[in-house]
Amino acid sequence: MRNVVVTGTPRADLGVVDELAALGVATVHEAIGRAGYLGPGLRPIQDGRRIGGTAVTTLCWPGDNLMIHAAVEQCQAGDLLVVTTTSPCTDGMFGELLATSLAARGVRGLVIEAGVRDVAELRAMGFPAWSAAVSAQGTVKETAGSVNVPVSVGGQIVRPGDAIIADDDGVVCVPRAGVARALAAARARLAREEQTRKALADGQLGLDLYGLRDKLAARGVEYVEHAQHVAAGGDER
Amino acid sequence: MRNVVVTGTPRADLGVVDELAALGVATVHEAIGRAGYLGPGLRPIQDGRRIGGTAVTTLCWPGDNLMIHAAVEQCQAGDLLVVTTTSPCTDGMFGELLATSLAARGVRGLVIEAGVRDVAELRAMGFPAWSAAVSAQGTVKETAGSVNVPVSVGGQIVRPGDAIIADDDGVVCVPRAGVARALAAARARLAREEQTRKALADGQLGLDLYGLRDKLAARGVEYVEHAQHVAAGGDER
Amino acid sequence: MRNVVVTGTPRADLGVVDELAALGVATVHEAIGRAGYLGPGLRPIQDGRRIGGTAVTTLCWPGDNLMIHAAVEQCQAGDLLVVTTTSPCTDGMFGELLATSLAARGVRGLVIEAGVRDVAELRAMGFPAWSAAVSAQGTVKETAGSVNVPVSVGGQIVRPGDAIIADDDGVVCVPRAGVARALAAARARLAREEQTRKALADGQLGLDLYGLRDKLAARGVEYVEHAQHVAAGGDER
Amino acid sequence: MRNVVVTGTPRADLGVVDELAALGVATVHEAIGRAGYLGPGLRPIQDGRRIGGTAVTTLCWPGDNLMIHAAVEQCQAGDLLVVTTTSPCTDGMFGELLATSLAARGVRGLVIEAGVRDVAELRAMGFPAWSAAVSAQGTVKETAGSVNVPVSVGGQIVRPGDAIIADDDGVVCVPRAGVARALAAARARLAREEQTRKALADGQLGLDLYGLRDKLAARGVEYVEHAQHVAAGGDER
Amino acid sequence: MRNVVVTGTPRADLGVVDELAALGVATVHEAIGRAGYLGPGLRPIQDGRRIGGTAVTTLCWPGDNLMIHAAVEQCQAGDLLVVTTTSPCTDGMFGELLATSLAARGVRGLVIEAGVRDVAELRAMGFPAWSAAVSAQGTVKETAGSVNVPVSVGGQIVRPGDAIIADDDGVVCVPRAGVARALAAARARLAREEQTRKALADGQLGLDLYGLRDKLAARGVEYVEHAQHVAAGGDER
Amino acid sequence: MRNVVVTGTPRADLGVVDELAALGVATVHEAIGRAGYLGPGLRPIQDGRRIGGTAVTTLCWPGDNLMIHAAVEQCQAGDLLVVTTTSPCTDGMFGELLATSLAARGVRGLVIEAGVRDVAELRAMGFPAWSAAVSAQGTVKETAGSVNVPVSVGGQIVRPGDAIIADDDGVVCVPRAGVARALAAARARLAREEQTRKALADGQLGLDLYGLRDKLAARGVEYVEHAQHVAAGGDER
Repeated sequence: MRNVVVTGTPRADLGVVDELAALGVATVHEAIGRAGYLGPGLRPIQDGRRIGGTAVTTLCWPGDNLMIHAAVEQCQAGDLLVVTTTSPCTDGMFGELLATSLAARGVRGLVIEAGVRDVAELRAMGFPAWSAAVSAQGTVKETAGSVNVPVSVGGQIVRPGDAIIADDDGVVCVPRAGVARALAAARARLAREEQTRKALADGQLGLDLYGLRDKLAARGVEYVEHAQHVAAGGDER
Repeated sequence: MRNVVVTGTPRADLGVVDELAALGVATVHEAIGRAGYLGPGLRPIQDGRRIGGTAVTTLCWPGDNLMIHAAVEQCQAGDLLVVTTTSPCTDGMFGELLATSLAARGVRGLVIEAGVRDVAELRAMGFPAWSAAVSAQGTVKETAGSVNVPVSVGGQIVRPGDAIIADDDGVVCVPRAGVARALAAARARLAREEQTRKALADGQLGLDLYGLRDKLAARGVEYVEHAQHVAAGGDER
Repeated sequence: MRNVVVTGTPRADLGVVDELAALGVATVHEAIGRAGYLGPGLRPIQDGRRIGGTAVTTLCWPGDNLMIHAAVEQCQAGDLLVVTTTSPCTDGMFGELLATSLAARGVRGLVIEAGVRDVAELRAMGFPAWSAAVSAQGTVKETAGSVNVPVSVGGQIVRPGDAIIADDDGVVCVPRAGVARALAAARARLAREEQTRKALADGQLGLDLYGLRDKLAARGVEYVEHAQHVAAGGDER
Repeated sequence: MRNVVVTGTPRADLGVVDELAALGVATVHEAIGRAGYLGPGLRPIQDGRRIGGTAVTTLCWPGDNLMIHAAVEQCQAGDLLVVTTTSPCTDGMFGELLATSLAARGVRGLVIEAGVRDVAELRAMGFPAWSAAVSAQGTVKETAGSVNVPVSVGGQIVRPGDAIIADDDGVVCVPRAGVARALAAARARLAREEQTRKALADGQLGLDLYGLRDKLAARGVEYVEHAQHVAAGGDER
Repeated sequence: MRNVVVTGTPRADLGVVDELAALGVATVHEAIGRAGYLGPGLRPIQDGRRIGGTAVTTLCWPGDNLMIHAAVEQCQAGDLLVVTTTSPCTDGMFGELLATSLAARGVRGLVIEAGVRDVAELRAMGFPAWSAAVSAQGTVKETAGSVNVPVSVGGQIVRPGDAIIADDDGVVCVPRAGVARALAAARARLAREEQTRKALADGQLGLDLYGLRDKLAARGVEYVEHAQHVAAGGDER
Repeated sequence: MRNVVVTGTPRADLGVVDELAALGVATVHEAIGRAGYLGPGLRPIQDGRRIGGTAVTTLCWPGDNLMIHAAVEQCQAGDLLVVTTTSPCTDGMFGELLATSLAARGVRGLVIEAGVRDVAELRAMGFPAWSAAVSAQGTVKETAGSVNVPVSVGGQIVRPGDAIIADDDGVVCVPRAGVARALAAARARLAREEQTRKALADGQLGLDLYGLRDKLAARGVEYVEHAQHVAAGGDER
């Protein structure tokens, strides 16, 4: 388990990543088989942003952002910095100065399973971030970690170069090799959804559109009129 | 413990519910004896909305929104959909398509002790929601549950047809049979508060308005000057 | 452990506190040695406010806001009310009426390690608050506590008269006797940061500005090209 | 929402409750349709106890155990005291003295969605308890609540007189009217499990015993040999 | 906010501390006015130990136990090491080797608001510990902190030299200057409790012993017979 | 993101795994560079067990243990079953029957980032388990997942065939290819620790053994006598 900074990591095709990003986190997550979602614990510090980029991954020691500085150098335009820690940490490991540095390199944003600070300044800069906490708690620069190794974030594995899509619903990771397939599937899903949306807006029911009435019956769900249900003591369940 | 969809559930009087809603969650909660509050875990996905409706309750399996589709059919104008799961779950069980379907039926909003997704779209639609999480994580439609049975949400019992009021402070449930009494009590409270507000704005103290000085003395609270307190080592408590 | 209301507490110099507040929570926290931050659990109910004041501390029983009423009388212009409870509590111990009373006395805001309610009204009033929860749950006025004694809030010790600075990043406490030294240090830090910001915006790296390359080497961090890393099985860590 | 102490509450048949208790929490929970489990948050303070009783329910204010004293008087032999609070609370609301009082009345144990204390003494007495916390924090006796009303505990509705079964797996509630049906179902389940256990001990697989191979195929689960999976990049998901 | 190791700290009288320890955490906590309890988050790694000692306090950086090593040198026979971190941390900052070192100095045990490891070995050694987590995660020795300064642990202020009592109910801190008063109050309480215990064991009720019947009436608690309550719809609250 | 059951997965050398297991979780974790620890959230249901095995990984849907049945068939003697879910889940996905099946195949134990039940029976059987929760809540068998794919558990990546060591301190994962190197490093560490233990037991200090005095000085930690510290107001930090 050496600590390494891996250089020259291949990235997912940025054009495809941008098209994926336009479709949003929920659609992409569904399209890849309800996979890759980094969980409800990573929340945006701003509303209404929807972005995508290629992951530069960073593994830090808790209370220590030394490796973020090493990671900045590995970032290029189109990247999105992904940071986690070796054990749970809420400290504000990232703030306005690091964002200034990343913005100068064309990095699209930050996903951090720890804390972020200077959030007013980040919002003013328009630098988007998704984090597990907002915290002014500062960090030191003392302990080694790694850059561009596979990491576990929010219960998912994120590898360097993977596509990261983030919006108000959170963050999803699409494996680098799977972005084209994901895009095709997401577009197909979107087309189907458009039809469903119209039908639902017209008053049709999901029960009918998705054929769920038989499913309910097969699983023993019974329809019972309220008065009858109460009379049978059913309300005392 | 059969799984049932109860139909024809009686609702609280919607006119009264609307008047209650205008008074807000905190006032209604106080008026019914500091009861019925669904806890700080249910947060709005939007700011500044204050709504009311009659509960259609839904009990789902974790990771499975089958029963929400069954619940939609039981909803009518003026209702508010209340969803919980048989065990804790943060998944995004509800999104834009279900909201489209509910909006087409005149449903006022969603209260869900689980996750919601498509929050940007829901905000754009103006469909209000209070949830325990925001999560893009999708769900399946496989396992039975119930609609319009009493459920436990946020440490409170919610019965179908109960009045639900929700605003920036969270969500409160008023039992169906108690809405008229609640309205009278809430109005009385509001009138008293208006007078108190004026007095406080004029610089009068709650200590005097509420007669708390005697209470403090009776409970042994002592007033001590700072220098004297420090000299007595009191600051070392 | 008597329950006391300490009167005539000395305060930090308000002019200095105001200057500190203008520098923001993160800068002040760093300037005093990365200390005094009240943790990520205290979140603002509004965006974009940055305030400072002198602490009036309040120790309440859970579910009981009696002592907040006693604390109001001890508040003066420039103060900021700091409330905690003897055991964890999320109840809405503070709302619009108390804010009206505090505003009439020139109090700048609230920091509460418990719940706040009437948040829509507080936002409309422009009365800023940082809290551990938003909750409509009401409280009683029955049990004794203390005002202006040292309290533990968010893992930090807050003493009456200390400077409290709060913004979108949370809340920091500066000991009363240390505000002048803190201000000098914070200004020095700010000046240094301004230079760093320019350098980073110009594309210089933190690795170089902070001299971190040697640190990485000294700690055994190795740079390895991606293909070589994969070939050595390094991606399987 | 008056505060009441309901007297003369009917109980589930204690003979049936005792037979249910012998079967254990998991079996009973499954037998009633995977319902009634009070969640993983209620943990025993001792190992190896398996008990049942009829619920006397108590709703307390946080930090206040006044109503537990009122509840004791409503307890009779065979009962089990169930306590919750109007908002989340971890205080030690129950200890050795209350246990002494309950033991003198033939009460079988305690289920509390709050804290318990004197756990060494309770273990020594052999008085079993399931709680959300262990805490020495004391409480006051000031604020009204109710006894023997329906309460929400651990995400479930518990009504006075319901059967409560508790063991190392936690706590389950069976509605009063359903205990006989639950017992029949639980016994049938136990008989089936006994056969399954033997088959599994003999090396048969659940895949075959439960007919799951078709289910896996129908849901698109594919079997793939490791080398082939790696070659196809499948390990990079 | 210099980082310091304070030497020659005065301690509470160890003889008194030992007598307090014999009375247990809950009794001592009550005797000092329901104060000083370090919360339900600090749990023992062993059952059935009841100890006391004088606090040597340690403030560490998260993921870094450097200052524990500095603290060891400040410990003497009768002390109890109290450790917390500048931000939340669950890492295993303390294990068998440090326990060996402390045991050699006559230190009685550990209270740590972070993680502990080697728990099997600590149990075997008989070295007692109360911690916020059990974690094998190792730490570094890089970042400064302080020894024997006031710290905030579990929502309480602990000062060097204070008495610490710990048992199965958790941990309580008694200010150094207050141990004699605490002992007198705790003994008085114990004597009263002994009488109460006998009365309760004989079947008398807390309602009568504590005079609570009037309190309930004064607070509007009504007694209502079950059938009457149900008929009035009272069960639908 | 197909759902697959990968067969014929290579395992770490079981002889080496057994030797690693004997050294314990904390030692192995340190030896591999303070890596691979699955966090404090996975706790043993029993005390005093120390085991090792090779991972068969399982990814389940929340509330659904279908894939555990598929995983059983892939297990062989010496394996240890590792289970996680696609989103957070506390349900009791594993109990006595599955343990019976695994035990018949020579599987050494269970690590599950979800709930386990029948814990009394598992203890009686001597089948060890580490879990994120104990819960009687049952699950269904409806939704697809995968077996023997890389999973994220407790913030770490676990790959099929990796070595898993578990004891009272929790669980550590050693990559399959690294077990021999880990064993050598762990043995070396153990030898060093043995010497350190003796020195510490003899009263030597970690400050001296690890050369930390210079480190403290270099980081600006000052030693100050108590009276002097108080006089300088240092206790008011």
